[in-house]
Amino acid sequence: MWLQREISLDPRPRGFHLVTEQVVEAIPELDRLEVGLLHLLILHTSASLSLNENASPDVRRDFERWFSDAVPEGAPFWTHTVEGPDDMPAHIKAALLGPSLTLPVAGGRLALGTWQGVYLCEHRERGGARSLLATVWGATES
Amino acid sequence: MWLQREISLDPRPRGFHLVTEQVVEAIPELDRLEVGLLHLLILHTSASLSLNENASPDVRRDFERWFSDAVPEGAPFWTHTVEGPDDMPAHIKAALLGPSLTLPVAGGRLALGTWQGVYLCEHRERGGARSLLATVWGATES
Amino acid sequence: MWLQREISLDPRPRGFHLVTEQVVEAIPELDRLEVGLLHLLILHTSASLSLNENASPDVRRDFERWFSDAVPEGAPFWTHTVEGPDDMPAHIKAALLGPSLTLPVAGGRLALGTWQGVYLCEHRERGGARSLLATVWGATES
Repeated sequence: MWLQREISLDPRPRGFHLVTEQVVEAIPELDRLEVGLLHLLILHTSASLSLNENASPDVRRDFERWFSDAVPEGAPFWTHTVEGPDDMPAHIKAALLGPSLTLPVAGGRLALGTWQGVYLCEHRERGGARSLLATVWGATES
Repeated sequence: MWLQREISLDPRPRGFHLVTEQVVEAIPELDRLEVGLLHLLILHTSASLSLNENASPDVRRDFERWFSDAVPEGAPFWTHTVEGPDDMPAHIKAALLGPSLTLPVAGGRLALGTWQGVYLCEHRERGGARSLLATVWGATES
Repeated sequence: MWLQREISLDPRPRGFHLVTEQVVEAIPELDRLEVGLLHLLILHTSASLSLNENASPDVRRDFERWFSDAVPEGAPFWTHTVEGPDDMPAHIKAALLGPSLTLPVAGGRLALGTWQGVYLCEHRERGGARSLLATVWGATES
């Protein structure tokens, strides 16, 4: 089985957002996979994907705080400033977290740890809608 | 060929630990793959996987030093502190390093660079045993 | 379809370098894939791969500035210094950015966002030639 589909995520404010359910609902065919993988690529360079704690909103707020402290808008060494003060830090944050996730599928469901969820990491103030390209492959139930 | 198996790694102290051999020994079926991939996902949000220098213990000690300096326990902006001072930094470190590795297999063996080894990155003081979900797929020897 | 091939990249100075075209030209068989994936692993521990902005050279210069500021050569806690002052920071930077990329292929071409390109991130002053192991798998056009 091979499947490829673009998923559009609504605009979200700068920060870290749980999107596991939205992604899974966009690919109902996952339930046919006995064993396989789901690859997600975000088609942008100033937002990223991560897999982390899915329960506490304060964890996601602290992610935003640490990343904005570690990659500050006002750093004296930025030269790429034409697209706004949040643009160059957004590229760095996106590279630190990464543009893609590869997630195992078992028995028709994502096989994640109990506390793991998919984060959309929005690094721009007004990033707009974000597109993911999902690719699924594996062996179907016989 | 498709194979999926959970691998349990014994509890380790906070720090960076080489686990390449342990992972390979848990999947003897790798030797049947002519060409393929091994995907490893750590099923936790305060530990991570990385691929780096496999020879010098001082490299792994310096990893611990840099990460604990860059993501300090005492940062004034942490709000998620209910699970202990090492918890929120552990989530950030885990996201920076990533929860998974995808590694090529060639001729029945992991096809890594000479100096590359798999790190279990334990970011908690007492993280306990850690579980990996290994997924293998590829073409077997004909 | 399965294909595995080593790609050699010429020596480059320390910094972030766009190599998308060089990688694609080394794998002309991509044009036979209707849907699939390309996995790239850099076989070194002091250089890395990333996917980011493909248009402005100043973005790539700012990447070098941020990473060299965040992982400084003169940090007092380094103990692994026998291979030169740029070696230990190079290992950390390589782990932050990651050793591999998994990229979707659709209709015979890499399916990336408009502004996304593959970076070779060279963290050593004189890293020499760098080897990638490319693995391609997927469904061919029928």
